[in-house]
Amino acid sequence: MARGRNMQIICCLILLTIAGFYFLIPSSNEVSSHYQNVQRALRRTYDQANGLENGLIHEPEVVVPPRPQHSVNTDYGPVTKDSPMIFIGGVPRSGTTLMRAMLDAHPDVRCGEETRVIPRILGLRAQWKRSEKEWNRLMQAGVTSDVINRAVSAFLLEVIAGHGQSAKRLCNKDPFTMKSAAYLSEIFPNAKYLFMIRDGRATVHSIITREVTITGFDLTSYRQSLEKWNTAISFMNEQCESVGNKCLKVRYEDLVLHPEMMMRKILSFLDIEWNPSVIHHEEHIGKEISLSNVERSSDQVVKPVNVDALTKWVGAIPQDVIADMAEIAPMLEKLGYDPNANPPNYGKPDDIVEKKTDDIHKNANEWYNKAVQVVKDANRVERPDGIIPALEMKKNQVAN
Amino acid sequence: MARGRNMQIICCLILLTIAGFYFLIPSSNEVSSHYQNVQRALRRTYDQANGLENGLIHEPEVVVPPRPQHSVNTDYGPVTKDSPMIFIGGVPRSGTTLMRAMLDAHPDVRCGEETRVIPRILGLRAQWKRSEKEWNRLMQAGVTSDVINRAVSAFLLEVIAGHGQSAKRLCNKDPFTMKSAAYLSEIFPNAKYLFMIRDGRATVHSIITREVTITGFDLTSYRQSLEKWNTAISFMNEQCESVGNKCLKVRYEDLVLHPEMMMRKILSFLDIEWNPSVIHHEEHIGKEISLSNVERSSDQVVKPVNVDALTKWVGAIPQDVIADMAEIAPMLEKLGYDPNANPPNYGKPDDIVEKKTDDIHKNANEWYNKAVQVVKDANRVERPDGIIPALEMKKNQVAN
Repeated sequence: MARGRNMQIICCLILLTIAGFYFLIPSSNEVSSHYQNVQRALRRTYDQANGLENGLIHEPEVVVPPRPQHSVNTDYGPVTKDSPMIFIGGVPRSGTTLMRAMLDAHPDVRCGEETRVIPRILGLRAQWKRSEKEWNRLMQAGVTSDVINRAVSAFLLEVIAGHGQSAKRLCNKDPFTMKSAAYLSEIFPNAKYLFMIRDGRATVHSIITREVTITGFDLTSYRQSLEKWNTAISFMNEQCESVGNKCLKVRYEDLVLHPEMMMRKILSFLDIEWNPSVIHHEEHIGKEISLSNVERSSDQVVKPVNVDALTKWVGAIPQDVIADMAEIAPMLEKLGYDPNANPPNYGKPDDIVEKKTDDIHKNANEWYNKAVQVVKDANRVERPDGIIPALEMKKNQVAN
Repeated sequence: MARGRNMQIICCLILLTIAGFYFLIPSSNEVSSHYQNVQRALRRTYDQANGLENGLIHEPEVVVPPRPQHSVNTDYGPVTKDSPMIFIGGVPRSGTTLMRAMLDAHPDVRCGEETRVIPRILGLRAQWKRSEKEWNRLMQAGVTSDVINRAVSAFLLEVIAGHGQSAKRLCNKDPFTMKSAAYLSEIFPNAKYLFMIRDGRATVHSIITREVTITGFDLTSYRQSLEKWNTAISFMNEQCESVGNKCLKVRYEDLVLHPEMMMRKILSFLDIEWNPSVIHHEEHIGKEISLSNVERSSDQVVKPVNVDALTKWVGAIPQDVIADMAEIAPMLEKLGYDPNANPPNYGKPDDIVEKKTDDIHKNANEWYNKAVQVVKDANRVERPDGIIPALEMKKNQVAN
């Protein structure tokens, strides 16, 4: 019987253990009610994120996120004012399109076409800010800097994220945003800037021969246009310098002569992994690189990196302007371009660039046809003989 | 021993039961991993609401909300493009400030001061849309109608929600938004519009005597200004009619003569409960009603509703203009104002309005002092003798 007793004690212990399990492990009811609580918390977290919170329920285990800032959803996650955006700017016809096409060839980056509306909104805001009277009126109406910043950044985010494919790193290329680098760095604290710099003589020659309308530029005068270039680039240079190491100055000539070295430097500055696609952007046209058929540089950026555009200006600028160059455009010297050399020595191209330039010359017709295909209007594409039919027709109309 | 055997069998059964429990009830490990899953789902739901979803994890028990639209958090919940916004517009000096002050007196509504930036953004977008060339360029760059609409509505929401107190119903008063009623109804499908209409002769008299700068208006000519009034109100009238029953036309004269009847009609149109505060707005100045000390009508809207402004224009308009009135401003007749009556019969004021008008005359100094207190600049307030010192000084400067 002693054995039986022992057995009974063991049984009792076992039964107690079972009872214990009922109390220690949540019952299936408890699990389901726990699940309901979590469901409720889930709902509430979503509501909070969307501002639906009514403030009545407080459960400490759910961390309440701060008031959400404007955020645009993309396949790569939300784009917010804290995203590491990239802004490419500079005086038009300074290689900003080439720069963005090379970055667009990278699988992690999307710049896309010029949005045109972004510099307009930035310009409008700068105009309000410049006028003390207007700014005071806005402040009086509760339209404070903070309200304006939120509104402008929401507008920009919607346009930058919305006008093209999503990508890990979004980028914007509207040349004149460089005039607002300081302000942009205020509303986008993690953005970086690429400031394209090019010999002003080449830039102005391109503006004039391609008839690129820019407010303030008199396309009939090299002298006046060089003065305007000087004012514009001087202001942009100040803006770039004002944001310190967030802005990288990129010389167009260096980019064209030494694409790999420059792109390695640029990608490292942007914290983006090296990818050889960026130095073969011509292979990505129409794929990763979307081109507008109304932008003036689309027919050029179709081609691989080449040195053709470096010295086209030589011989085209009137002698009296050449003579006064140092005074007309003091920024030339400041930026390292000898104002009295025609042309200055920009350097020797890498082998790959020489090869690509040769290819363009040997297969001029193929590259021309490709450009026509992209721009969809043969009149707007530079022919192998250097003529752009649309501009030629315009000149003839004026002459007759 | 048979008993011992039985006991052993019972023990075995009990042990099997325990083992069973281990398999049927989730172990504490499983509970904790279930909890981790839910935690992850919580995080993910929040991420989705904020656009952080990476699209890699799919768990069917979590309902994925649709891509969130732009939303501005306020104490009364999120403000989105679907919010029942109120827009007050009309030609300046047509009672738009009085209208918004009366609505601001309602505890559920906040209009606030003129933001000035909202009509600017709407104007910019209208300009892009009007130019076929520009619109085509934007479309080519992926800046589609949808992208622009999202950007413009995000900008407007940030400004409307951000420039003042939050309220159950947000309202905006920038007179020229009425020129964009059709577009606004596209981006804010649940918005409603109050179109303030006033006898053009009174409006123009007020514009000219108060020197309110409006693009296109020649403040030295009643004839030209009445023509401009006609063009502006005609366009606004079309815009109001184009959104159908979302737009209510409110005659300033009716609002002033019969405030209670009109405000009952307006609140019912807006689906807002009646509240008597709206016909005693003067009691809410500086509290629910925030006034800008740089807006031209602030010194007037400080006072209770009164009939003083109805016929001030009589006798001030040159005879030759009076004679051609029907041709200069055909909208007068279209809107129910007899162009040949000087003045037309606007109607008889309610008793309460007569009483309030008498009070203003009897206590002219008190009301004047109150206005000075609000505007904080005595030179900009109309004195009991009808003179606004700032304008008088300007006139004298011109005369000397």
